[in-house]
Amino acid sequence: MDTLNKLSATEAAAAIAAGKLKSEPLVAACIERIRQRENDVQAWAHINPELALMQSRECDRQQPRTRLHGIPVGVKDVIDTADMPTEYGSPIYRDNQPKCDAACVAQVRDLGGVVLGKTVSTEFATRHPGKTCNPRNLAHTPGGSSSGSAAAVADCMVPLAFGTQTTSSIIRPAAYCGVVGYKPTFNVINRAGLKFLSDSLDTIGVLARTVPDAALIVEELSGSPATSFDVVPDLKPRIGFCRTPYWHQADRATQKALERAVPRLQQSGARVTEVELDGEFARLVEVQVTISSFEIYRALGYERTRFPDLISETLMGRILGGGRVTRAQYEEAHAVARRCRARLDDTYRDYDALLAPSAIGEAPKGLASTGDPVFGSSWTVLHGPAVTVPAFTGPGGLPLGAQLAGPRGHDSRTLLCAEWVRRALAE
Amino acid sequence: MDTLNKLSATEAAAAIAAGKLKSEPLVAACIERIRQRENDVQAWAHINPELALMQSRECDRQQPRTRLHGIPVGVKDVIDTADMPTEYGSPIYRDNQPKCDAACVAQVRDLGGVVLGKTVSTEFATRHPGKTCNPRNLAHTPGGSSSGSAAAVADCMVPLAFGTQTTSSIIRPAAYCGVVGYKPTFNVINRAGLKFLSDSLDTIGVLARTVPDAALIVEELSGSPATSFDVVPDLKPRIGFCRTPYWHQADRATQKALERAVPRLQQSGARVTEVELDGEFARLVEVQVTISSFEIYRALGYERTRFPDLISETLMGRILGGGRVTRAQYEEAHAVARRCRARLDDTYRDYDALLAPSAIGEAPKGLASTGDPVFGSSWTVLHGPAVTVPAFTGPGGLPLGAQLAGPRGHDSRTLLCAEWVRRALAE
Repeated sequence: MDTLNKLSATEAAAAIAAGKLKSEPLVAACIERIRQRENDVQAWAHINPELALMQSRECDRQQPRTRLHGIPVGVKDVIDTADMPTEYGSPIYRDNQPKCDAACVAQVRDLGGVVLGKTVSTEFATRHPGKTCNPRNLAHTPGGSSSGSAAAVADCMVPLAFGTQTTSSIIRPAAYCGVVGYKPTFNVINRAGLKFLSDSLDTIGVLARTVPDAALIVEELSGSPATSFDVVPDLKPRIGFCRTPYWHQADRATQKALERAVPRLQQSGARVTEVELDGEFARLVEVQVTISSFEIYRALGYERTRFPDLISETLMGRILGGGRVTRAQYEEAHAVARRCRARLDDTYRDYDALLAPSAIGEAPKGLASTGDPVFGSSWTVLHGPAVTVPAFTGPGGLPLGAQLAGPRGHDSRTLLCAEWVRRALAE
Repeated sequence: MDTLNKLSATEAAAAIAAGKLKSEPLVAACIERIRQRENDVQAWAHINPELALMQSRECDRQQPRTRLHGIPVGVKDVIDTADMPTEYGSPIYRDNQPKCDAACVAQVRDLGGVVLGKTVSTEFATRHPGKTCNPRNLAHTPGGSSSGSAAAVADCMVPLAFGTQTTSSIIRPAAYCGVVGYKPTFNVINRAGLKFLSDSLDTIGVLARTVPDAALIVEELSGSPATSFDVVPDLKPRIGFCRTPYWHQADRATQKALERAVPRLQQSGARVTEVELDGEFARLVEVQVTISSFEIYRALGYERTRFPDLISETLMGRILGGGRVTRAQYEEAHAVARRCRARLDDTYRDYDALLAPSAIGEAPKGLASTGDPVFGSSWTVLHGPAVTVPAFTGPGGLPLGAQLAGPRGHDSRTLLCAEWVRRALAE
C-alpha cells in the first residue's frame, strides 16, 4: 500500500475500473508521500488532507464513469479553486479564496477526480521563483513557472498536475524534474478561472510521469477520443530534427545528447531528417516577449497600479516594458506569428513531429532562477502541441528532456510520437 | 449644469482638457439623471454615488493625461470590480465581491476614468433577461445581454459603458436602444477579469451615443492611434450591401429600410454593390452555437454541477446541449469559421465595410425575451470589428440600426465608415 503513490494514473484508473483499487488508499498514499517529503521538496502552496480524503471516499461510493474517477490531481496555484485558497504565487493574494472553481477544476471533479491540493507557482506564472526545490537534487531549481506541479509529480506525490505555459512553463520544469510535460494545442483545455497573463498565449496543460497519463487527463477534459498507445511499437514516425534558431544557446551536453539520439531513432525505425526553421522563425522568441509583455501590462493592470510594492523587481520590469510596447509592434508580432504558423503547417506535411531541445541544459543550481525558457517560447507562439519526455542524463546527473512538437490539432499523433521516441531512447 | 449628462465623451474630454469642465459636476449630473430615471429604466446592478464622486474629485486634483480623464464609464456586471459587487446576472453570485479589477476596469482607472457603477447583464451574458427596460419605451426589452449598458447610455445616464458580445450582445441592445454599439476586432480589449462564457468568441466592446465616443475608449485601452473623424465628409467608402444568409428572418420594415438606404448612400458618394455571402457562411449561426455551447458547458462547469437549481431553465438547456457537442463537431465548427474568415479577407479587398441588419426588427414588446440575436452571430464568429449606428425608425416608433462590419484589425476604417453611413442616412 505504501507504493500506491507510485502508480501511474493509467494503472490506477484500470485498477479502479476493475474494482481492485479504491480512491481513498490511493489518495492516502499520496498524502503520506507528501508528509514524508514536503519539508524538503516544498511543492505545495496549499493542501488539505482531510478534504481530499473526504472527496476520495465520496468517489468510492460511486461507480467509475471516466478514467479520472478517483485519481488525485494537483492544481497549479494560478487556477482558481472554490474550496482552497488561490494565491497566484503573489503576496498580493495571500489567503485569497476564489468564489468558484476554474473550468478545468470543475471538470476534474465532475469526471470523478480528486483535487489533492494547490501546487506552487512562481509569481503570477512568470519568472520570480517560489519555494519549490528539484526533487532530483534539492540544491537545484525545479524550473518554472509550473514548479510545484513538476516537483510533486516527479516525487510521486501525485500522478497528475495541471501546469500552464505562456513561455516554457510546462516543458522546462518537466524536463528539469525528469517527468513528462504536455502543452496541448492552444485552446484545448478551457481557461475560465485561470489568472490570465497573456490571453493570446496562456495554455493549460499537464505534468505526468508517463505520456499515456498526460494524454488521459487532457483527453477526458477536452472530449477528445482516447489515444491507444498499443500502436506505439508499430509506428515508423517521420521526425524532423529541429535544432531551432536557438541551438547555440543549448549547452554541449544537450546538443550532443540530441545529435546522438538521431541515429538511434533511425535504427529503431524512424525516418529522421533535419528541418531548419529559418527566416522569421528566428524572431519567435522576441515575438513571444512582445505579445506577452503587451498583454501582461494590461492583464496585471490592477496589481501594477494598486500594489506595485508587492510585485517583484523582475516582474515589474517586465510589466513596465510591456507598457512601452506599441500597438503597432504588438500587431506586427501577431502577424509574424501567423505567418510562421502557416509556414509550419506546410512543414508538417512531411513530418509527424519535430524533435527539439526541451531546455538549454540540466536544471541550474540554486533557487534564485528557474532557468532559461528559450526552447519553449517558439512552440508556445506556434500554438501546436508540445510534449517533453525524460530522455537523457546530463553531466551533473540530472535529467534532460527531448521535446516533440506537432501540428495544431494533432495532439494524439504528437503524443504517440513522443512515447515512441521515449521508448526508443530508453532501450 | 443639469444637461452635462448629455455631453458626449468626446465633448466632455475636450472641455476637461481645456480646463473648462471638471469631472465632479459631470459625474454628479450622471448620478442625478440616474436618480430621476432608474426606477423606470433599471439599468444598474450596482451604483455607489459617493464612491464615484470621490473618484471624480481625485481626478480633478490631477492633470488630464488621456481622453478618458474624468469621464464616467459604466461596466457590465460580468466584468470584475474590486470595489463593487459583481454578480454576473446570476443569483449564484449574489453580493459577490471580486478581489481585483478586471484588466479593462483597471485600465479605465489608470487612464483617469471614473467607474460610475455596474450595469445589468442577463444571466452570465446569455439569454435569461435582467430587470432593465428599454428607455425608448419601457414596455419593450432593451435587448441583451448588455442590457443595462445600452439602456444607461441611451438614457444619458453615462456616456460610455462596456458591453460584451458572444453572439449579438453589444450590437442588438445598441440597435434596440438607439445608440452606437462597437464590438472591436477579437482580442483588442484585454479580457482578464471577464466572466468567461466562450473563450473563442467573448469580445469586450462598448456602448456609446456617438461613433467617436466608442472609438475613444477602445483606442485609449488598446493603445491604438486616435481616429480623426475630420476626414469623414471627404470619404467615398466602398460598401458591400450584405443581406446575409439570414435576410428572410429580418422583418419587412428592416428589409425596406436597408434597401432604401442603398441609393441614399450612393447619392452621398459611396460605391455600394451587393455582396452575397453564400456556401458555408450560411452555417455561421450554427457554428456560433456549436462553439459557444461546447465552451459554456466547460466554462460554467462549477455553476452547472454545484448550483443547478439557481440556473434558469433556458440557460441550463443550452449548457446541457453543449455537453452533447462532440469534440469532432467543435473542431469542425472552428474549421468552418477559419475558412469563412479567410474567404472574407478576400471579399474585403473590394470593400471598406459591409452593411447588414443589426437585428431582425425593433425591440420586441415585453421583458421576457431579449430578442433574436441572428444578425450578430456571424460577425462575432468572423472576429472582425462590427459597429451599429442608429439609422432608421421602425413602424412602432422604436429605433433600427445599421450594422457595418469590417476586416479584422481594421477597426479605425470600419468606425469611419459607420460614422459616414450614419451621417448620410441622417441627412
